[in-house]
Amino acid sequence: MAKLTTRKEDYSKWYNEIVQGADLAENSGVRGCMIIKPYGFAIWEKMRDQLDKMFKETGHQNAYFPIFVPKSLFEAEEKNAEGFAKECAVVTHYRLKNDADNPGKLMVDPEAKLEEELIVRPTSEAIIWNTYKNWIQSYRDLPILINQWANVVRWEMRTRLFLRTAEFLWQEGHTAHATQEEAIEETEKMLEVYAEFAEKYMAMPIIKGFKTPSERFAGADETYCIEAMMQDGKALQAGTSHFLGQNFAKAFDVKFTNKEGKMDYAWATSWGVSTRLMGALIMAHSDDNGLVLPPKLAPIQVVIVPIFKGEEQLNAIYEKAQPLMNALKQAGISVKFDDDEKNKPGWKFAEYELKGVPVRIAMGARDLENGTIEIARRDTLEKQTIQLEGALEYIQHLLDAIQENIYQKALNFRNENITKVDSYEEFKQILETKGGFISAHWDGTAEEEEQIKEETKATIRCIPLDAEEEEGVSLISGKPSKKRVIFAKAY
Amino acid sequence: MAKLTTRKEDYSKWYNEIVQGADLAENSGVRGCMIIKPYGFAIWEKMRDQLDKMFKETGHQNAYFPIFVPKSLFEAEEKNAEGFAKECAVVTHYRLKNDADNPGKLMVDPEAKLEEELIVRPTSEAIIWNTYKNWIQSYRDLPILINQWANVVRWEMRTRLFLRTAEFLWQEGHTAHATQEEAIEETEKMLEVYAEFAEKYMAMPIIKGFKTPSERFAGADETYCIEAMMQDGKALQAGTSHFLGQNFAKAFDVKFTNKEGKMDYAWATSWGVSTRLMGALIMAHSDDNGLVLPPKLAPIQVVIVPIFKGEEQLNAIYEKAQPLMNALKQAGISVKFDDDEKNKPGWKFAEYELKGVPVRIAMGARDLENGTIEIARRDTLEKQTIQLEGALEYIQHLLDAIQENIYQKALNFRNENITKVDSYEEFKQILETKGGFISAHWDGTAEEEEQIKEETKATIRCIPLDAEEEEGVSLISGKPSKKRVIFAKAY
Repeated sequence: MAKLTTRKEDYSKWYNEIVQGADLAENSGVRGCMIIKPYGFAIWEKMRDQLDKMFKETGHQNAYFPIFVPKSLFEAEEKNAEGFAKECAVVTHYRLKNDADNPGKLMVDPEAKLEEELIVRPTSEAIIWNTYKNWIQSYRDLPILINQWANVVRWEMRTRLFLRTAEFLWQEGHTAHATQEEAIEETEKMLEVYAEFAEKYMAMPIIKGFKTPSERFAGADETYCIEAMMQDGKALQAGTSHFLGQNFAKAFDVKFTNKEGKMDYAWATSWGVSTRLMGALIMAHSDDNGLVLPPKLAPIQVVIVPIFKGEEQLNAIYEKAQPLMNALKQAGISVKFDDDEKNKPGWKFAEYELKGVPVRIAMGARDLENGTIEIARRDTLEKQTIQLEGALEYIQHLLDAIQENIYQKALNFRNENITKVDSYEEFKQILETKGGFISAHWDGTAEEEEQIKEETKATIRCIPLDAEEEEGVSLISGKPSKKRVIFAKAY
Repeated sequence: MAKLTTRKEDYSKWYNEIVQGADLAENSGVRGCMIIKPYGFAIWEKMRDQLDKMFKETGHQNAYFPIFVPKSLFEAEEKNAEGFAKECAVVTHYRLKNDADNPGKLMVDPEAKLEEELIVRPTSEAIIWNTYKNWIQSYRDLPILINQWANVVRWEMRTRLFLRTAEFLWQEGHTAHATQEEAIEETEKMLEVYAEFAEKYMAMPIIKGFKTPSERFAGADETYCIEAMMQDGKALQAGTSHFLGQNFAKAFDVKFTNKEGKMDYAWATSWGVSTRLMGALIMAHSDDNGLVLPPKLAPIQVVIVPIFKGEEQLNAIYEKAQPLMNALKQAGISVKFDDDEKNKPGWKFAEYELKGVPVRIAMGARDLENGTIEIARRDTLEKQTIQLEGALEYIQHLLDAIQENIYQKALNFRNENITKVDSYEEFKQILETKGGFISAHWDGTAEEEEQIKEETKATIRCIPLDAEEEEGVSLISGKPSKKRVIFAKAY
């Protein structure tokens, strides 16, 4: 196996090599669309299942809405339409026919033109609120707490595997409420769910905040987000939760009788995370040997590599390993015994490092004699020989320790790379030399935000929810500001 | 709650009323596309999870391929292309713009026309085999055993909720093999998986068979299927497994070095089931009171309805019920305690009957005194009062008994409605009077098959795998035939 390009040499190349080398995804024959390969999909399934569990525990149900949005519905909520019109795939015909001029080829049948064009959903507010109209008459019909797992399409010109693709997989929650307070509470609750998932399962520290008006979701009154720092110091938006006010209810005429017997428009939220999280997961923890996966999201948590000559020795090792494997499975830990004779142990070690398997066990002839196993942990690459007896407990603790260690490592890195600056000069200097997140004052105007973006490519990632009040002056205009916001270059 | 139309009055209306009344699905604002509502989706999730488990147990992995198929790939396998060309949604543009003549409206941007049209996948053989080309060089790369859960689009003109919709959800397995034998073995293995799922989980008896050449999947050398009988005697194709030969390997040039060192084309299979199974599940078991669900696929297996006056009595009932609820949950049985004060017990009884909850428990004041509960089973509508003590075991057995009973009931119905006939006269008479499946001889020609279809609307559902050799003459041509095939009108 060829060595990976290192992060220092070329971060972007390193990322692509891991995605391909660890068999996570690849480009397809369709512009901007990716193929998620089995190993990559197994990680996504783990993420999806955990999120799904958390959504259900917070009272949400899954449903499924059509992939197509008729143009007349698409354009109903004006800001939302404007935000997505420039990047949407449009179905105009419903049939192909034989191309008379090119035998064996097909062509669009001009007689099968749709009366109304269909947009392949870039997001589903329009189609869903057009449905909620029929579901909501009274406050008794509220809240509606629905989530959908689906594919969406946004026509991106410059794509990167997982991070930015024309088609991606995601979940989108769409809720309807009787009051503004309840909708805001829901928006914040789902932000907490995302934050908990990122930190406890992805082992990825995040900052919770508000987006500035210019970075809000098209059609939202407020967008909450979680922002994570990648190892190159850039930011990645890892999840958003939107308070949509009554915008969609007004656009789709969703009125209900409230408790006081008066008609009111319903209040809305939507919230989503996507296969983009795969990119975040890869970039948050991996090293120059390959992927590093948090144990809680690893499809294979433990791999056992027997080191043997001949079938007899292999059988002896397998016999010794089997009780441990059974015990691991019983404890809910996934384990693979790799006795494939096509590849040598050294090759396998490198392969499982590349694939980010948290714990690797080697068992050879000497281990058989001594009743031992050699355990290597993926995060620190440390090895240790321990007694086979008691190995289950050791591994259980080790998996917890790895989960905690990679979180702490990412947290330390993140904290070391947030810099407070108080002048635009310093801002530009830090951005160019150290990078990372910059905590600075901002005057609250779109003009200053835009100027900084144009001049430095850094954007306001968020206004942290927990930002302390602090007197300051903004970077360019010098106007007074009461709290710092987070700037960074971003994926 | 209004009574349902009975099956006898109008089977088709009865079906629609159950789908809507039990909150399973509804039509959307998009032609032919349905909305799967939370309760319907919860049943689909149960089906999906069980099938997914069975696919993984038989060595398959999930992956994800793009929703779009470029026209040049779509048309590569000629028969497949021909089979789907007339019903496919075509993306021709990737942007909308403001419509200058209609303020606030959008229009397709003529400058954003795609160089090559994209077909929204009606099935994924083309896009997947175009990918497998890069994955397969040697017999060592085989087999590839991949499944995908996805949405697909087939432009149907006459749609019915679940049974025939323009967009539907499904799984599609796509495997590649080094030999013909192995590919056929895979095709048959997956048919067995479907058959087991239908019978053990859906409680729906099926007949396994081959499709005739004219009913084969477009691009297959052989299509295996499972056929179920609905309560109106019509057939429903509940799953298909295709042996694709080397057709796709040749169309996409997927060659590999075999064990003998020679180049060969890879052998393919594909197999799928869809949300159509929801329609089958509804029609196989439900009655004039509503849905009847097999316990193994019921989102709520047990519902407890307290019959109370005032909060004190409700609390006393809840206290008594709680240990049973905990015990049920511990045993993996889903249970709901419905203390909603908006609705009366009688309303709830009808509602849970309509929704097909297998076991309903009522607890009132007298039950509190006597330490009893009243148990009603959905399949037979029988009620019984039993001691609360020991109820867990009783319920566990009851759920098994219901699962078995609805299977037996469907099996008896099916068997009673298969009629052997030996003349075309009799064939037509039985079809018009009794209906159901007709077992008859066929001369093996597409002509006879087509004539029968045109004259009677009955098609050959399958050539049963277990058909016994029997000398006979075919219905119309009178030519000799060695086995009977199954004819029926079908969904």
